[in-house]
Amino acid sequence: MTDRKIDTTTMVVDPFNTDHQRRWSWSSLGKALLNAAENHAKARGFGMMDLNGKRYTWVLSRLAIEMPEMPQVYDEIAVSTWIESIYRLFTNRNFAVKGTDGRTFGYARSIWAMIDYESRQPAQLEQMEGEVFQHFLAPQEPCPIDPQGRVKPLHDEDFVKAHHAKYSDIDMNGHVNSIKYIEHIMDLFPMDCYADASNLHRLEIAYMAESRFGDLLSFFRRKVSDTTYEVEVRKDFIPGGDRGTPVVRALLNF
Amino acid sequence: MTDRKIDTTTMVVDPFNTDHQRRWSWSSLGKALLNAAENHAKARGFGMMDLNGKRYTWVLSRLAIEMPEMPQVYDEIAVSTWIESIYRLFTNRNFAVKGTDGRTFGYARSIWAMIDYESRQPAQLEQMEGEVFQHFLAPQEPCPIDPQGRVKPLHDEDFVKAHHAKYSDIDMNGHVNSIKYIEHIMDLFPMDCYADASNLHRLEIAYMAESRFGDLLSFFRRKVSDTTYEVEVRKDFIPGGDRGTPVVRALLNF
Repeated sequence: MTDRKIDTTTMVVDPFNTDHQRRWSWSSLGKALLNAAENHAKARGFGMMDLNGKRYTWVLSRLAIEMPEMPQVYDEIAVSTWIESIYRLFTNRNFAVKGTDGRTFGYARSIWAMIDYESRQPAQLEQMEGEVFQHFLAPQEPCPIDPQGRVKPLHDEDFVKAHHAKYSDIDMNGHVNSIKYIEHIMDLFPMDCYADASNLHRLEIAYMAESRFGDLLSFFRRKVSDTTYEVEVRKDFIPGGDRGTPVVRALLNF
Repeated sequence: MTDRKIDTTTMVVDPFNTDHQRRWSWSSLGKALLNAAENHAKARGFGMMDLNGKRYTWVLSRLAIEMPEMPQVYDEIAVSTWIESIYRLFTNRNFAVKGTDGRTFGYARSIWAMIDYESRQPAQLEQMEGEVFQHFLAPQEPCPIDPQGRVKPLHDEDFVKAHHAKYSDIDMNGHVNSIKYIEHIMDLFPMDCYADASNLHRLEIAYMAESRFGDLLSFFRRKVSDTTYEVEVRKDFIPGGDRGTPVVRALLNF
């Protein structure tokens, strides 16, 4: 087991992990962050597999990613992650995405809860794993992006499309994959938003409830400004009927 | 530039690249194969970027993947690729997926054409790059799986669903990503097909035409036996009207 506080994984942006502009795709970026998080936790004895033995698991609550520049195909990048802080029910984990040549591409902030796998109740982090966590805190490591804000509920009239969760949406916990929501949300926007000179710049996403295979997910979108949109995903929404349950809320800055 | 004929890339099956059974996902596997292919070609001077300067690009024509066993989360794997043969218009590239502990997970066969980026006409491979290719042929390397068969056209009544190609479907060439078709095709089947003891075992896929952002893709599925299905994807199919253009045909063995 490692004694370091920060883990850095280097990788090359592979050609089939890019978008049509040969930029690293947001879904590959998102997966790289979550894989870095899990590998960091695993190397310190509190990965998902370790916790499963104790009937607990990590649940991603919030994620904010800000990428002033997106790596291009064949760029060599270094993804770093560390724990910023720990509270009673939540822990803050941050990320940096840099080039191995020293360039900074962007940063990310995430908030996680640990829940009892069966009761779905949150664990008391400070009591359970407090000492282990305290040992690895790196609060002084810079993460110069704003924390996530709060996205208000959207209106039924903001409905755009519905999607039944499919096999490829589901992750190892049996829930719709945190990153697949990002893909589905980005697909709500026209290709212009991802043209040569434009791209998603900042994404905030709050994971509010879990959804599973076959769940009907409805997507709502509201324009806040020329470059800013709010999105909500609800399960079991019936137009003109049940409002459904909010599953995800997101803010996108193009 | 390397002189070797075979390249082997080792990697770990990361937790967010698995399915709900903690098996490596077929889309991660597919991307790993195509990335290995492109990186192998690039290291020998005939990658997509090298060819783009000469106004040519590689086009994947056929892919057959057979995985008697699928790697599990945290397995360390080695993906190898080499060129088996070269013909006038096509080249055969094969793959092996093994564990770093020596286990064999499966093999794959692929057939590629090189086309003129503007005229879309195939290049005469033996004339163009013949000497370069001949140098790297490894026909003796074993790839003990059957070559791809031929899937017949499906009937209009086999129609299952339609999908407009979205941003996240598009690859660096501006076309729907070869691997995204596999994801969409696998999503045509119920979760039972991917239960604990069952999984996709062999996939054959023929790429017949390109599709782009916004194209209407219609999916057709036909049951051949309890464990075998044929799939066709057509663009611009109008039920009761235009038959549309075949884009992809596939055979799946569960």
